[in-house]
Amino acid sequence: MFESFELGHRISDRAYAAAEPKLRQELLQAQYELLEKKHFPVIILIGGVDGAGKGETVNILNRWMDPRHIVTHAFGEMSDEERERPRMWRYWRALPPKGRIGILFGAWHTDPIVDRVMGRTGDAELELALNEIVSFERMMADEGALILKFWFHLSKRVQKERLRALEADPKTRWRVTDTDWKRFKLYDSFRAVSETALQETSTGYAPWTVVEGTDPNYRYLAVGRALLDALRNRLAGGAQAASRPAALPEPALDGRTVLSGVDYSHQLAHKPYNRALEKYQGQLNLLSRKKAFRSRSLIIVFEGVDAAGKGSTIRRVSGALDARHYQIIPIAAPTEEERAQPYLWRFWRHLPRTGRVTIFDRSWYGRVLVERVERFCSHQDWMRAYHEINEFEEQLTEAGGVVVKFWLTVTKDEQLRRFRERQKSPFKNFKLTPVDWRNRKKWNDYQRAVCEMIERTSTARAPWFVIPSNDKNYARIEVLKTLCERVAAAL
Amino acid sequence: MFESFELGHRISDRAYAAAEPKLRQELLQAQYELLEKKHFPVIILIGGVDGAGKGETVNILNRWMDPRHIVTHAFGEMSDEERERPRMWRYWRALPPKGRIGILFGAWHTDPIVDRVMGRTGDAELELALNEIVSFERMMADEGALILKFWFHLSKRVQKERLRALEADPKTRWRVTDTDWKRFKLYDSFRAVSETALQETSTGYAPWTVVEGTDPNYRYLAVGRALLDALRNRLAGGAQAASRPAALPEPALDGRTVLSGVDYSHQLAHKPYNRALEKYQGQLNLLSRKKAFRSRSLIIVFEGVDAAGKGSTIRRVSGALDARHYQIIPIAAPTEEERAQPYLWRFWRHLPRTGRVTIFDRSWYGRVLVERVERFCSHQDWMRAYHEINEFEEQLTEAGGVVVKFWLTVTKDEQLRRFRERQKSPFKNFKLTPVDWRNRKKWNDYQRAVCEMIERTSTARAPWFVIPSNDKNYARIEVLKTLCERVAAAL
Repeated sequence: MFESFELGHRISDRAYAAAEPKLRQELLQAQYELLEKKHFPVIILIGGVDGAGKGETVNILNRWMDPRHIVTHAFGEMSDEERERPRMWRYWRALPPKGRIGILFGAWHTDPIVDRVMGRTGDAELELALNEIVSFERMMADEGALILKFWFHLSKRVQKERLRALEADPKTRWRVTDTDWKRFKLYDSFRAVSETALQETSTGYAPWTVVEGTDPNYRYLAVGRALLDALRNRLAGGAQAASRPAALPEPALDGRTVLSGVDYSHQLAHKPYNRALEKYQGQLNLLSRKKAFRSRSLIIVFEGVDAAGKGSTIRRVSGALDARHYQIIPIAAPTEEERAQPYLWRFWRHLPRTGRVTIFDRSWYGRVLVERVERFCSHQDWMRAYHEINEFEEQLTEAGGVVVKFWLTVTKDEQLRRFRERQKSPFKNFKLTPVDWRNRKKWNDYQRAVCEMIERTSTARAPWFVIPSNDKNYARIEVLKTLCERVAAAL
Repeated sequence: MFESFELGHRISDRAYAAAEPKLRQELLQAQYELLEKKHFPVIILIGGVDGAGKGETVNILNRWMDPRHIVTHAFGEMSDEERERPRMWRYWRALPPKGRIGILFGAWHTDPIVDRVMGRTGDAELELALNEIVSFERMMADEGALILKFWFHLSKRVQKERLRALEADPKTRWRVTDTDWKRFKLYDSFRAVSETALQETSTGYAPWTVVEGTDPNYRYLAVGRALLDALRNRLAGGAQAASRPAALPEPALDGRTVLSGVDYSHQLAHKPYNRALEKYQGQLNLLSRKKAFRSRSLIIVFEGVDAAGKGSTIRRVSGALDARHYQIIPIAAPTEEERAQPYLWRFWRHLPRTGRVTIFDRSWYGRVLVERVERFCSHQDWMRAYHEINEFEEQLTEAGGVVVKFWLTVTKDEQLRRFRERQKSPFKNFKLTPVDWRNRKKWNDYQRAVCEMIERTSTARAPWFVIPSNDKNYARIEVLKTLCERVAAAL
């Protein structure tokens, strides 16, 4: 495919001078409209051959538009804070909020290509990485991002000439490094791998635009025009590739679900409870201090029926750990900064470094639970969330995270009993709000949402554990025991 | 002073068991009240002798209260992202928002003490560091934070016994490291330096509470009670040490100010402007790519009269730089997350790493300009801001930052001309809002605020440059030239 971009495209200085002022003004206007509406973020990826004018083009874009509302990020070496988290964490933290333009240099597509060219990975791993990119960009597009990807291409001959010319000029010599020449030797391989990568990750919602990098005039106008068209189209309400999820299957005809078989009769008396508590808290504590844990992390998700005892169970877990090594993240309504970002952003920002534990008190599952049932998000938003969540958790486990998810459940009668108890107790009645009563009325809707959630997101890597919690002692020990087992198995 | 904490305080298990449930319940209640009101954050510093039960006390606090709303941070080795920023950056990012409790282990007081004990610094440097701490905590208190500082003490004999006991028990052996024994050898010196540090940083708004660490029962109750008292007192509206700033002196009787002498007659014709632009942009570009710059950073502040040309001047500066190395931060109203933090927090979060440039389009000076004139903050808030800002900028320059601040100013007539021009132009009228006209009515108030700002915050390390901007060409070149001079002088 690159042959079409070795034609020697060229635009004369005169034609450029004639076209540039108008393009510039229109881009600026579009940028201000974007900024004012704040409907979506713009993500511009920049990749391609060295010496093809990537940096210069980005500088031109910054000059044409208002640079105060553009965020440019170049991804070089990872910082140690980045290395200790899933691969995509550094990109998540660089995403532009709604209304702004983010220009990302050498972002998520770079490593898979370079690793393959260097022979550090094989075809299968490349394929896998590209699939992940497709999913990720799909999610961004579904979240409303306008994604533009520019690939700057040069033929082998032109690249060599260009690197030489840059080196010869004292003003530009700094831009050519040894790495550039080393990479040049791998041109053919780089070209072949890039071609595969571009083809596989060029999608309707995030297409690659290949730009011939030989002539600056051509390069700048090509990128500027493409950006302007995309911005205008989108600002005018141009169709965003709408995802149409299939309808969910109806609940099983025989009424059997993952929840219907739960045995609520388990009980644990005070004495054996105390013994077990000491045992498993001790075990968990030791596990969290093992040397092997220093390169892993633990992510615990607590979800559950209202009044199922999430808070008190979490305290039994955190009580086993050193406060210096865990964080508990209670998930409530998103903040303003979080609302300006894709849904999962607010969870990414809290991911633990290695050797640490993060406990989520409610989590990203809100989307397929409360947001689904209360219709806070659209049908298609929560439908695609199953897939997005599975991929998210896969990234967590791939980075060495141990992900354990608990659904604490009580019977409807037991919930009522606990609500009434809370009403009566002066210390507990702050825990009972009108929302709890409203949710209770939607018991069946919630149950259905929970069943589907578990069916679709309980994976071998990040399984759900349904914990019958009518008896609190029993539930707490089950949770602790499960945690010990999962962590021990992982180390 | 430590003698009073070697008395062997002890509380029997029975007395402890009698007191603990009530304390616990009251602490929890106070915590929920704090959380609900969200009036202020609570910062708990934990320091002291190794083996005195610091970690255990923190774990107890997490167990007594709701750990979901406590953020615990232990500061060990710096990450590389932290090392490349001013020393206090890592603490700013760990501050709890309003309504939450932050427990900070080994925070800002630790390095000054350890450095002095190890002989890496002398008395003068210790003194300086302690003064900085006093200022910092003063600011936090002024911003409304409730600050509690606990120092866990053990006599030399008891510490030795305790370290030995911890080592003997396989369950606790991991907690004693070589560093602990190395430090123990320095006990006397550590004690002496700590005593100085505690005395100098114990203030009315952030006092140290020394806790004898020998007996766990005593330790837990002492800390728990102190925390409860402070929380309750503050929640009940207990007096926060109110800072009473002196009144500002009236404007000079003869009407002379830093602005009255500005010469607005400078002009620069198109041709010499273009030559100068190329020259200084080139110079700035080269400077920013010098090897020496990689361990420095550049922080540029743009403030100015409305319509003075901040935006277009910023573009001339950013146009000289590589987009991968700068960020422009436009400062508008703070977000929700920013409002839950001390005033300067939202600037700290944007500080550049080394080798990078951050351009602030409006800045922390908003507090002594718009917030002062429009009375968005109290008299005492903006009065103390001068001092806080000076200290902030001192920290920036100490960490290798080059701080350059520009005040772009035009005459009142020229402003009117530009406002009218904007009204007429279809591309510019979005830049003119009713706020601009309102601000113009307060011209004199703003002028006075600006004069005082410059008088009080123009320091040798971070000077203000007043740029007459009636002629835009002249202003832009002055800014670029100044930047080149400042950076060149710093490298």
